[in-house]
Amino acid sequence: MIQSLAATERTRVRRVPENADYSQATLLAVIDAAWLCHVAFADANGTHCMPTVCWREGDYLYVHGSNGGRLIKLLALGVQACVTITHLDGLVLARSAFSHSMNYRSAIVYGVFESVDDEAAKRASMAALMEKIAPGRHSEVRTGSVKEFNATTILRISLAEAACKVRSGPPVDDEQDMGIAAWAGVLPMALRPLAPVPDAQWTLPDPAYVSAWGR
Amino acid sequence: MIQSLAATERTRVRRVPENADYSQATLLAVIDAAWLCHVAFADANGTHCMPTVCWREGDYLYVHGSNGGRLIKLLALGVQACVTITHLDGLVLARSAFSHSMNYRSAIVYGVFESVDDEAAKRASMAALMEKIAPGRHSEVRTGSVKEFNATTILRISLAEAACKVRSGPPVDDEQDMGIAAWAGVLPMALRPLAPVPDAQWTLPDPAYVSAWGR
Repeated sequence: MIQSLAATERTRVRRVPENADYSQATLLAVIDAAWLCHVAFADANGTHCMPTVCWREGDYLYVHGSNGGRLIKLLALGVQACVTITHLDGLVLARSAFSHSMNYRSAIVYGVFESVDDEAAKRASMAALMEKIAPGRHSEVRTGSVKEFNATTILRISLAEAACKVRSGPPVDDEQDMGIAAWAGVLPMALRPLAPVPDAQWTLPDPAYVSAWGR
Repeated sequence: MIQSLAATERTRVRRVPENADYSQATLLAVIDAAWLCHVAFADANGTHCMPTVCWREGDYLYVHGSNGGRLIKLLALGVQACVTITHLDGLVLARSAFSHSMNYRSAIVYGVFESVDDEAAKRASMAALMEKIAPGRHSEVRTGSVKEFNATTILRISLAEAACKVRSGPPVDDEQDMGIAAWAGVLPMALRPLAPVPDAQWTLPDPAYVSAWGR
């Protein structure tokens, strides 16, 4: 696995370049912390941006969907795509209005998707998604039938052309604004698990991944 | 304000159309609950997808940035854009692997941005963003100088061509899968405020918007 990503014309961060992060470790961490990504692509009707579930295996980001979906059909044709993941970590309040910012971790991936066609690979990939959602759950559910797998397209995109942008920490005000009596600091936020809501028909003890959710 | 949005070739929801929501009320609620959006657009280097802060005034979604930014420069030229906002509300765990889903609220807006050039309108718009971030704060901070406003582009896109997609509630399994002994239900999640982190130099009592954050 490569340790650092070479910036390309598309991935070189121009705005606030000190927030750019081209390390492989940051990229994988941003992707692995995400449940969904936004995928941009173009067709005859214009440029589109669609949210979808994502997961990672090795140096690839995966998405999936019904064969008939517009997103899936176009991506499977190999149209150029841009995948973006953004975690918002906080509002950064400075003494000057124009020094306000946000703390965040974002990743952007450019490339084309390729479909995963081998049935064993498709099954392994869906198992990996289930393992991300709930460790140990794959052995409990009814796994996909041949018909269900045949109706589903699994796509992956290489992480070779990618970059991250990360901001953290307190606000940065100009020296001449430091005397202004406005609260300055960070209002942090995070995507947090809330109490599980079991289906009305569930009567058995909760599995570990449910008991651990929201703790 | 219109009550219901007419679906266009681009906004008509094709996948799981029962989750489509073309009501104006849903659209405004999804936008107003968001701190950021993802904007897709194309240039000579391909299709891009970038996260940025957003807010709403009336029937327009606003973004802003430094005049020199690639995103801002291109959007100001009137290139076609697609703006997407997604709130993830939970993982939906079904008894069958292929019946798993997610609960979410998403909005997608198509169109072209126009720049807000009048200085009074720019000032009012930045005040509206500050009011969204922290009610009452606009009168505390140093507001933008003429130079700062001149270096900043504020853009807005009409909400006329837009649609939402919303899923909520428990998993839906096929009748023949109801006997499978896998936990079924929802693992909810939400973007929650965490304890404020004041700047090291702040010594006065916290304003109301800070005290209320994370409660």
